[in-house]
Amino acid sequence: MATHSDLDVAIRAANDDFERRFAAGDAPGLAGLYTSAGKLLPPNSDAVSGHGGIEAFWRGAMDMGIKSAKLETVQLEGLGGTAVEEGRYTLAAADGGVLDQGKYVVVWKNDGGRWKLDLDIWNSSEQAG
Amino acid sequence: MATHSDLDVAIRAANDDFERRFAAGDAPGLAGLYTSAGKLLPPNSDAVSGHGGIEAFWRGAMDMGIKSAKLETVQLEGLGGTAVEEGRYTLAAADGGVLDQGKYVVVWKNDGGRWKLDLDIWNSSEQAG
Repeated sequence: MATHSDLDVAIRAANDDFERRFAAGDAPGLAGLYTSAGKLLPPNSDAVSGHGGIEAFWRGAMDMGIKSAKLETVQLEGLGGTAVEEGRYTLAAADGGVLDQGKYVVVWKNDGGRWKLDLDIWNSSEQAG
Repeated sequence: MATHSDLDVAIRAANDDFERRFAAGDAPGLAGLYTSAGKLLPPNSDAVSGHGGIEAFWRGAMDMGIKSAKLETVQLEGLGGTAVEEGRYTLAAADGGVLDQGKYVVVWKNDGGRWKLDLDIWNSSEQAG
């Protein structure tokens, strides 16, 4: 049986929350999973900072037809109030068809007992079109 | 006058070393800047692990005409033997023409007193072609 630390469980719960809010089309809820200084580093874009920008970014992704995001942790390291996660994502359309899959690194911060995304960078593992 | 911590200075020196080895076409030297478990998460590719894979990846980039990589730290956080850097990169051709510019996150590890790249992910800030 694989053992799971408290941190593993907490980050899985936070990623479950991310997946749930994404599937619900809840862009403000997604933004609220980030710290107030939270930052996205999206492909083919400048950096996006703060809850307003993050909400607009994810709403834009949803409007482009991305209806679900699945997150799988590959490696997770706890460093006190910070955790560094390497993972894989899969983005899918309403009919379940995969739109993109790739890799990410998230730097998490423990914000008053709740783990929030502080820095979020990803890229596609698919060949450029 | 901006103040620079020992960590700032050490990571700048390591990035200078990266730039120098890149400009010299020294792929094995570049690979040696990573930990033995070092991992690249390149766009449009699966993850690349270990010195052999990292050397081959950077040699491939050089063979494609990328002759220099410039690295600029945006944010750096020390967490004991780990440091998390957010930065910007610029890749250029032999004639100095910019081939790509974008963002990266590097997780550094202090490996016996020397800071080495342990996890390296980046993406372009340019619009998809």
